[in-house]
Amino acid sequence: MPKSVLQIQTPDEAETVFYEAFMHGDKDVMAALWAEGDVVCVHPGSGVILGYDAVVRSWSHILDNANRSEIRYTATKKAVSDDLAVHLVAEEIMHNQVVVAVVIATNVYQKFEHRWLMIEHHGSVMQQEHTGETLQ
Amino acid sequence: MPKSVLQIQTPDEAETVFYEAFMHGDKDVMAALWAEGDVVCVHPGSGVILGYDAVVRSWSHILDNANRSEIRYTATKKAVSDDLAVHLVAEEIMHNQVVVAVVIATNVYQKFEHRWLMIEHHGSVMQQEHTGETLQ
Repeated sequence: MPKSVLQIQTPDEAETVFYEAFMHGDKDVMAALWAEGDVVCVHPGSGVILGYDAVVRSWSHILDNANRSEIRYTATKKAVSDDLAVHLVAEEIMHNQVVVAVVIATNVYQKFEHRWLMIEHHGSVMQQEHTGETLQ
Repeated sequence: MPKSVLQIQTPDEAETVFYEAFMHGDKDVMAALWAEGDVVCVHPGSGVILGYDAVVRSWSHILDNANRSEIRYTATKKAVSDDLAVHLVAEEIMHNQVVVAVVIATNVYQKFEHRWLMIEHHGSVMQQEHTGETLQ
């Protein structure tokens, strides 16, 4: 099946596409969002998954098996240059309107010609209670 | 005490400075490596620490309390633009020449005028055994 082409104009739009695909289990959109080549993904507690095919396969597995969750996501910090953007995001994973986990994610987007695609997702579960210095 | 000024020419050099300071417990160099402003740091399992003072304080605490470890670090993926660089790094934490933990880190560097400084470190402990798709 040919990969869809998404016309994403900004890193913020790419981030919306990512979380909508995640929440709705949309594997085609998730596959289209990732750039081809040596992209990287780290799921919470796991090692590095390297390369488009392996990364998309890992998401396909997650989206097949995950309960549909609502995710409230908040970008704590964004750093953007002409063709590279890094967002640090707090993801609150919700079930029945209750937060069941908080994942901290670094999402990296790159501009290819005129469209932004995802090149890295690094997620880690927040295990400690917050202190005055943390946001969560 | 005035903050030292490091003249770091490349993201790779910044990464070397970071891990040397980490391994040697050099709090002054660590403080000098981080950019001032709303930098962010996520230690394994923790939430987001936001802002230069809080981030440097967290590292000061770690460097005061950590046993001196050797860290073998390997950048799996680097993405670089004119003034922003993202490195995904596998850190093997060694004690007595034995790997006791593997941390996956996303390190982000930004160029300020003519020098590169750290603006994000996001570390997560690898808990799962590797599969064919992971590097570790």
